[in-house]
Amino acid sequence: MIAERIEALRAEMQKRKIDMYIVPTSDFHESEYVGDYFKARKYITGFTGSSGTAVITMTEAGLWTDGRYFIQAERELSQSPVTLYRMGEEGVPTIKEYIEKNLIVGGCLGFDGRVINTKAGSDYEKIATEKQATLYVVEDLVDIIWKERPKFPKNPVFILEEMYAGECTESKLKRVREKMREKGASIHILTSLYDIAWLFNIRGGDIEHVPVVLSFAVITMEESIWFLHKEVLDEKLQEYCEKIHIVRKPYEEIYNYTKAISEKETVLLDKNIVNYRIFHSLNPNVKVIQALNPTEQMKAIKNKTELSNICDAHIKDGVAFTKFMYWLKTNIGKKKITEISASDYLEERRKEQALFVDLSFDTISAYGANAAMMHYTATLESDTELQPKGFLLVDSGGHYLDGSTDITRTMALGILTEEEKLHFTTVCRSNLNLAAAKFLYGCRGINLDILSREPLWKLGLDYKCGTGHGIGYLLNVHEGPNGFRWKIVPERDDSCILEEGMVTTDEPGIYLEGKYGIRIENELICKKAEKNEYGQFMEFETVTYAPIDLDAIIPEEMTCSERRLLNDYHQMVYKKISPFLTEEEREWLKVYTREI
Amino acid sequence: MIAERIEALRAEMQKRKIDMYIVPTSDFHESEYVGDYFKARKYITGFTGSSGTAVITMTEAGLWTDGRYFIQAERELSQSPVTLYRMGEEGVPTIKEYIEKNLIVGGCLGFDGRVINTKAGSDYEKIATEKQATLYVVEDLVDIIWKERPKFPKNPVFILEEMYAGECTESKLKRVREKMREKGASIHILTSLYDIAWLFNIRGGDIEHVPVVLSFAVITMEESIWFLHKEVLDEKLQEYCEKIHIVRKPYEEIYNYTKAISEKETVLLDKNIVNYRIFHSLNPNVKVIQALNPTEQMKAIKNKTELSNICDAHIKDGVAFTKFMYWLKTNIGKKKITEISASDYLEERRKEQALFVDLSFDTISAYGANAAMMHYTATLESDTELQPKGFLLVDSGGHYLDGSTDITRTMALGILTEEEKLHFTTVCRSNLNLAAAKFLYGCRGINLDILSREPLWKLGLDYKCGTGHGIGYLLNVHEGPNGFRWKIVPERDDSCILEEGMVTTDEPGIYLEGKYGIRIENELICKKAEKNEYGQFMEFETVTYAPIDLDAIIPEEMTCSERRLLNDYHQMVYKKISPFLTEEEREWLKVYTREI
Repeated sequence: MIAERIEALRAEMQKRKIDMYIVPTSDFHESEYVGDYFKARKYITGFTGSSGTAVITMTEAGLWTDGRYFIQAERELSQSPVTLYRMGEEGVPTIKEYIEKNLIVGGCLGFDGRVINTKAGSDYEKIATEKQATLYVVEDLVDIIWKERPKFPKNPVFILEEMYAGECTESKLKRVREKMREKGASIHILTSLYDIAWLFNIRGGDIEHVPVVLSFAVITMEESIWFLHKEVLDEKLQEYCEKIHIVRKPYEEIYNYTKAISEKETVLLDKNIVNYRIFHSLNPNVKVIQALNPTEQMKAIKNKTELSNICDAHIKDGVAFTKFMYWLKTNIGKKKITEISASDYLEERRKEQALFVDLSFDTISAYGANAAMMHYTATLESDTELQPKGFLLVDSGGHYLDGSTDITRTMALGILTEEEKLHFTTVCRSNLNLAAAKFLYGCRGINLDILSREPLWKLGLDYKCGTGHGIGYLLNVHEGPNGFRWKIVPERDDSCILEEGMVTTDEPGIYLEGKYGIRIENELICKKAEKNEYGQFMEFETVTYAPIDLDAIIPEEMTCSERRLLNDYHQMVYKKISPFLTEEEREWLKVYTREI
Repeated sequence: MIAERIEALRAEMQKRKIDMYIVPTSDFHESEYVGDYFKARKYITGFTGSSGTAVITMTEAGLWTDGRYFIQAERELSQSPVTLYRMGEEGVPTIKEYIEKNLIVGGCLGFDGRVINTKAGSDYEKIATEKQATLYVVEDLVDIIWKERPKFPKNPVFILEEMYAGECTESKLKRVREKMREKGASIHILTSLYDIAWLFNIRGGDIEHVPVVLSFAVITMEESIWFLHKEVLDEKLQEYCEKIHIVRKPYEEIYNYTKAISEKETVLLDKNIVNYRIFHSLNPNVKVIQALNPTEQMKAIKNKTELSNICDAHIKDGVAFTKFMYWLKTNIGKKKITEISASDYLEERRKEQALFVDLSFDTISAYGANAAMMHYTATLESDTELQPKGFLLVDSGGHYLDGSTDITRTMALGILTEEEKLHFTTVCRSNLNLAAAKFLYGCRGINLDILSREPLWKLGLDYKCGTGHGIGYLLNVHEGPNGFRWKIVPERDDSCILEEGMVTTDEPGIYLEGKYGIRIENELICKKAEKNEYGQFMEFETVTYAPIDLDAIIPEEMTCSERRLLNDYHQMVYKKISPFLTEEEREWLKVYTREI
């Protein structure tokens, strides 16, 4: 099937004399997750992971993906003609290196200019120019061969009330315009769906588990223009837009609008997000200021209302998760439980909570060796029955009107090996050590990451991903510009200075192919500690409340101070969660949050 | 006196219609320490610290220096008309901000183009241009008013034999030319005195404690040209130059040489080091490639001969230091010892060691509150008698033909307060935790620094400097591009990836103004640990051998693993050092390296 699709694409390429065609994983907004309509790369390669890029030539089809997906991609591509390129591994060419090497001199490089951001598009353009090759970017070739393509999403929009958002749109727009003025910009093109939703205090449903609205925005000093499909706004929303002076224009109109921008204007945009077609519609004489969208930093620094809401949401989410753990730990070996039935049970517990909107992402419920695949999702075919031994890893979260959550717990289902226990204890130490960090203002994720990684590195172990990411408020669970990572990844803006009010996950892990996966993930709010002659000290408050499975802990492998951190954490979990449990659940939680 | 000098300078400025004159701390080579001839900034301000820049206007004289020198500068400037600008503190303008604010529109900014590097010179030029101001850079105004200026140093050169250098000049030149070819350069202008000495395997004596030769070098694909005062080469050295085909030209000839470089050439140089006058002598059509000097990374990665020599040098140095500690700890309170007499005793012990060349820098012997000044040097006026209480901090090192050392120990001279002990123990933990790091290849100082700083940060303490620096081999004790620092300082190239063979100091501290200073400094060799599916792991070997004063340690404030690190370290010190001690010293060392 994949082979046929690739051949069909090659036929279209041949008609247009295209030698190489790039199919990334992207919508027109550089969203991390994309709706089914945009899953062209999945369609053409068969790889279902959320991150990856395909490059198709007349003789080869390659897929590039990162360490989180190596095992999964290997399996999914094993029956297809697609070659896996493991990004970041020694000797593996990057996409650009591959294009440089394999694009024929004087040939033609093709891609849909709407699904490639300006930065990448310009890089490809540069390589093509060096090879005296032409670019073909005006058509979506996959669309031509994709007969049963899903519909373009146009779901209804709803308002996020100020009691949840904590700041009105007028105030947010004022701050954006201040930033524009600071940078000398008269127009700001904003195409990030998360930022548009944050700025206009609206949410939608155009990406599964990411409640955004497919739309573009342009902010000038006088106007706020929202390019979207008019049918997604009901009367109430239209009134809302009138009230706060948001001008609506059709979604596809953005390209004409940007084409018409006068060369007297100075445009602020982020080339890493704005698509190549928008950028190239601009008059070349328009002055462009490259910068992170001002809204990125603004939405990452949660306001007091949001922070207080987030703590509430985490208590509810912790109650749901604790009830799930209780059920799992008391029923394992007694009744049939599978990866999917376990995650279904957890989903039910979340749905019972007040202000629940949706899961914040597809739950990862991975038993045994499945959990070694960092982003495994159980399917009906892969669904595995849980046995009373080894680990179940569950990475999940909820969207609530009062905030989003992202929590991972790895739970012992029965007897563990000494290695499993040692590794679990080590991951637990990693998690606790980062959460306990105290640092001077000015630190970034790259400064702190080693606090989490060092216990693993000491054992010659590592995890092939960052330690944590910023998290959106009823938006994408992955959000910049904050994060924990030891190597700067230029295309990820996740190494900003950690500011008060930022929320970041803390999720070290150990993944042993064919054996098991362990991850413990909590969310940390960055707060101010004391200020003295050395500067402003900062620290974290952990807001995720669910027991870390003591059945898998070897207390002797922890220092006294690490044991104290775990005991303090468990005491807090009991205090916050126990009031919302049944008697049996409470008794169980008491045992599982006991002092060690 | 300072006031008179400033007035004399202002008179010269007035004659030339200069409104603002910059006097940095620099020779013509951007050396960190400079000979007396070059101490113009000290002459004009009275501040004796090794780092600082003066800016003189008709109405104000300002001195900029960094956190290491705040206390010292405050004291030394207290009687002079010079204002102290504490670099890096909140609200304190940088030099550039100060110039931007205070340079009169249409005025004139002056400095000697030879003592300002190209990067800074270009920045100043830019500010002047924005202010429609002119630049006056052709004269050294301080030279005109400085009647008794010391002589320009022209000390004899000697060869560093291959048994010490480990690689011949021909081989080093070959590697440099490979790098030039890689970067597409046909000419390399090398003005760093350390790099020239390393490249040509020669040493000299033109900077106190930094055995370099005031000279410039130009490397082309065919020639190696050395610009220096001919009288510094004796017959043997001239023969050496002939043998390895080094062309000699007069020192001042560099400016004519660079002026004559054809516009067909491509020049590799480091604008952070090459002086403004050289850069501006180049034909503007010459293509310039900005890069770190290739020799910087090469000389930082010590070869096997150097590493083996360095370990030998450290044993000798450790013996000298241990004998000193024994003498100090057994004589304190019994005979009169001052800061200077203590450092003199230590110097004598170093001089007894084989292959000793010089101290590697002015010894810091600082008692009590004096040690709160990070770079305090005892003078005849400040020399303090040691009492049998509190701390003596001694930061010192030796140059040997087989390597250079840099060690700091803080020693309890008698009764300590609980706070002193807690702080000493914390600094010790900081030092040990960094030394015990294990990390994946690719880590830089910014990744690791927090291992050292976290124990202090947890107490709300900090030290206002990096945690460590690279160290030269019979060269400058401070050397790039390796170092430990949590914030990147753009003008310091000390955050490279840590490579096998690099030697870096590990020197956390606590400095309490008016109370005491504590620093413990060891040197760490970066080595490869295991390589596995996660990558190449790296670790450190500590090569500094002297006891960390157990009289100041509170074992209960350390974790078990920290105590184990200290015990292991002390066991190694005893093993390496005890064979070279007297019976009494050995017995003493046994006690001071005992297990805790």
